[in-house]
Amino acid sequence: MTGRVTILRLCHRIPRDLRVTTHLCLTARALGADGLILADIVDKTLQEAVQDVCKRFGGRFQIRMGEPWRRVVKDWKVRGGEIVHLTVYGLPLPQAIGAIKASPAPKLVVVGASKVPGEVYELATWNAAVTNQPISEVSALALFLDRYFEGKEFSLEFDNAEVRIVPSERGKEVVSSNKRGQ
Amino acid sequence: MTGRVTILRLCHRIPRDLRVTTHLCLTARALGADGLILADIVDKTLQEAVQDVCKRFGGRFQIRMGEPWRRVVKDWKVRGGEIVHLTVYGLPLPQAIGAIKASPAPKLVVVGASKVPGEVYELATWNAAVTNQPISEVSALALFLDRYFEGKEFSLEFDNAEVRIVPSERGKEVVSSNKRGQ
Repeated sequence: MTGRVTILRLCHRIPRDLRVTTHLCLTARALGADGLILADIVDKTLQEAVQDVCKRFGGRFQIRMGEPWRRVVKDWKVRGGEIVHLTVYGLPLPQAIGAIKASPAPKLVVVGASKVPGEVYELATWNAAVTNQPISEVSALALFLDRYFEGKEFSLEFDNAEVRIVPSERGKEVVSSNKRGQ
Repeated sequence: MTGRVTILRLCHRIPRDLRVTTHLCLTARALGADGLILADIVDKTLQEAVQDVCKRFGGRFQIRMGEPWRRVVKDWKVRGGEIVHLTVYGLPLPQAIGAIKASPAPKLVVVGASKVPGEVYELATWNAAVTNQPISEVSALALFLDRYFEGKEFSLEFDNAEVRIVPSERGKEVVSSNKRGQ
């Protein structure tokens, strides 16, 4: 795998963004990010939903909340990390990904909702577009992580899982840590 | 490009799923699907939101609503099409995608919310998993389309657009059909 990745979610609104931000967290976790930082706000419902999935399906995905976005971004850069801002206005991902992957520095991937402060475009190391069409930040993040990790995230193992899904041509097979069941 | 793709969205609930299904539509459109069929229900708010994006950003993405899911699936197969059901329980996408791409038949990609009828697993030509971890159907669809279209969807042109975004390292550049502006 390339360098480590954490997501910074901007502009989350309670309760309006609960489901979309939950989808972002699940996507980040399933595709190999270390964690997600929810900027500027604490959403306990979101936290419980994500922690419940982590407990059942394992892994070390971390969720942090309520930290001011500007401080998170500046601290990340001071510590030698780089910022990838996913935005429809940025350079196409196929064009940007080479330089992003060439640097081993840990990446903070910034994904906003509708109103991202203009300052983010300046602070970002890269502004990258997952197509220059209106798209979901959830799919933008998914495609970014897949290109960044080069598909290796499909082979991830999540430790300490209570349950594990067994791939199946038809039907649903789930294995628990101490017994096998439907 | 490989064969044509249409999405079938199951189990949409009003108003709970408005934003997630909108994200699905935007993802489907941006990544080259022909359209989305919302099964069993009509959601005018969703329709207007998606049509507004299509009008401004162009292309031929179609949204249909209120058709019974079983009829859509059966008609699709009768006409020689194939069904790809995206589900966490299916065969891993990297394993399934070869066979899916090898057939030129038009694909109906079925994406559900939480409660997908068991019958769908039987009717599907393939049950494919975008990781066997809990993930968003939005990112599952994005990764499926990217693998299916082999990244060529990043070069799509959308005709009859009123506005077009110009890729930019910093800032926001938008061109309208008759003038250039911010």
